[in-house]
Amino acid sequence: MIYFDNSATTKPYKEVLETYSKVSEVYFGNPSSLHTLGKEAEMLLDQGRDQIAKLLKVNKKEIIFTSGGTEGNNLAIKGTALEHKNRGKHLITTSVEHASNYEAFAQLEKFGFEVTFLNVNESGEISISELKDALRDDTILVSMIHVNNELGSIQPIKEVGELLKDYPKVYFHVDHVQGMTKVPISFKDCYIDLCTISGHKFHGPKGTGVLYVRQGVKLFSLLTGGVQENNLRAGTENIPGNVAMAKALRLSMGKFVDNKNHLNELRNRLVNSLREIDGIVVNSPDNGAPHIVNFSLPGIKPEVVIQALGERKIYVSTKSACSSKLNEPSRILMVTGLGQERAESAIRASFAFENTKEEVDEFVNALKIIFLQLKEVMR
Amino acid sequence: MIYFDNSATTKPYKEVLETYSKVSEVYFGNPSSLHTLGKEAEMLLDQGRDQIAKLLKVNKKEIIFTSGGTEGNNLAIKGTALEHKNRGKHLITTSVEHASNYEAFAQLEKFGFEVTFLNVNESGEISISELKDALRDDTILVSMIHVNNELGSIQPIKEVGELLKDYPKVYFHVDHVQGMTKVPISFKDCYIDLCTISGHKFHGPKGTGVLYVRQGVKLFSLLTGGVQENNLRAGTENIPGNVAMAKALRLSMGKFVDNKNHLNELRNRLVNSLREIDGIVVNSPDNGAPHIVNFSLPGIKPEVVIQALGERKIYVSTKSACSSKLNEPSRILMVTGLGQERAESAIRASFAFENTKEEVDEFVNALKIIFLQLKEVMR
Repeated sequence: MIYFDNSATTKPYKEVLETYSKVSEVYFGNPSSLHTLGKEAEMLLDQGRDQIAKLLKVNKKEIIFTSGGTEGNNLAIKGTALEHKNRGKHLITTSVEHASNYEAFAQLEKFGFEVTFLNVNESGEISISELKDALRDDTILVSMIHVNNELGSIQPIKEVGELLKDYPKVYFHVDHVQGMTKVPISFKDCYIDLCTISGHKFHGPKGTGVLYVRQGVKLFSLLTGGVQENNLRAGTENIPGNVAMAKALRLSMGKFVDNKNHLNELRNRLVNSLREIDGIVVNSPDNGAPHIVNFSLPGIKPEVVIQALGERKIYVSTKSACSSKLNEPSRILMVTGLGQERAESAIRASFAFENTKEEVDEFVNALKIIFLQLKEVMR
Repeated sequence: MIYFDNSATTKPYKEVLETYSKVSEVYFGNPSSLHTLGKEAEMLLDQGRDQIAKLLKVNKKEIIFTSGGTEGNNLAIKGTALEHKNRGKHLITTSVEHASNYEAFAQLEKFGFEVTFLNVNESGEISISELKDALRDDTILVSMIHVNNELGSIQPIKEVGELLKDYPKVYFHVDHVQGMTKVPISFKDCYIDLCTISGHKFHGPKGTGVLYVRQGVKLFSLLTGGVQENNLRAGTENIPGNVAMAKALRLSMGKFVDNKNHLNELRNRLVNSLREIDGIVVNSPDNGAPHIVNFSLPGIKPEVVIQALGERKIYVSTKSACSSKLNEPSRILMVTGLGQERAESAIRASFAFENTKEEVDEFVNALKIIFLQLKEVMR
């Protein structure tokens, strides 16, 4: 099996599942309970929180556990808008956001908020000067995806943060779901106020995530009830999930440090091979993330290719998993200006640290054969 | 160890954790992905959904997976209010709700909704005639907890449903988190539109839950993004968690069927023993749920008793885990009219099917000794 769909989800590490099981069995108490079992569970959760905070170089009070990237993005965006609406109702984001951000803004528009969607160039990047022009007195939030989940385009988070430093009334939210463990950013150096990460994108359990909430930032809570997670996210804590996610983060960040160039090598190898195939065009920008390669086979339905690759146990995807069943051309590729033909025939290969050069070569060979067969059928 | 804090959380069944691990390892694909791994994951999720639907005797399209009881209650209450606000802004609930319901209503009041909190009698039950009087032309939702999490009081869900049948514009939400697998109700026979259950309360994984949404009921989605869960709850599905929860539900419901009277026997044994101890007063009503026994030791701080019991590896709680760290008398016991002294000194023992008569006896003996020691200290 060659699994090149790591931007959709990753296989959890064995050690992560072992931690999950052990914690579930031994530390099953409710951390809100006052007895020893509850206190042990609370301590363990605290350790997990501390571990994640240290890995992200932030304070553990700034770590809010969520059920995943979608919840994190929704809490950051709606939570900021609803909490600070009396200060202004203007929000800024980009036109290349993941559905969870995009739909959150669409919902807020119905609530009377005004949203500016920044354009992107052919590499999928926004322009700092366009952002600067968009900022108004009533702007309360700038929110953007760091690494685009379809193209791998990287937004200039540091420059945005430095610009927004001079706008203390404007909160800065980053959707770091695809970037985490692959394209590191410093939350502090980038002056980020809110940052979303998702456990299952770095070999952690599904249904886990973190929203980094800088100390001092106030949010309107979407899921109210108990006082868990600093009163921002009620509900009995998913301790085994959160502790296992902490382990997944440590292991994944370790792999990145140990072999920084591995993903780049895979990416360059694949991109170079694809560029040699007549009729295939690479969509990902050259300065994009090292783990995402998006390309198109103009005139060919990508579902057919996915299917044929699947028969050889090679797994890639068309666009964002969260949008893959919508029968439309990729919204991201369209607004990036790559044209309808490429937006309708795009395929995304996305790597994990465990993938190898040999797998890239096998994938390219299989793709060539399938592509040839399809061209003959269509002749 | 004697674990009598099953209303706070339960120990996951071994088989549940095995299912979780196996699904995580083998079926790790994103069900939204178009390839085989995605489709296998999707099929498995569908089976889990179908299994839960059959156990609850509802349609599988009516099963919405959530991250737990708090999310389910928030989605039901805020989702109904925000979706149907143009039809009316009056909501009805009770004064003995779990924090996740109570705080959801508190938040909606700030959004201009008007909320009627129904009173309860000394058994913690609402009155149908008071409910009937509270219904207005602009009422859009009646929401109530089935089995109260602190006292075990049972609301007359069937009667409420039958009353509301004549009010087709009013949605009926039930928080069934404590009742599930212990005090069965038929969602259909009770004319319930929305019903919340939580996996970790019946030996399933933490971070899992279901909101039953009757076909035809429209909700405002709190977590927007992808089209998962019938467009009501976006985000990559927690397949291992959901499938493992399905198994926990099947096992727990099986245990109930196999030994219907077991919990009642434990309860009666404990209540009768407690009533023999001078200075202890039972708060739970005689017609309450079979797995919750709430009692007070007037004049004694319950934390001290919890601590002393904990040293003997006996685990019980004060009030709702979600509120246990708030240094206040129990809100539930106060509104039930049990008085401040009882509300400040309450202890809750809550059973699972695995608990035994011997454990009840050991608990009572330990409690007697501790109680005597405390009385001497305080003399």
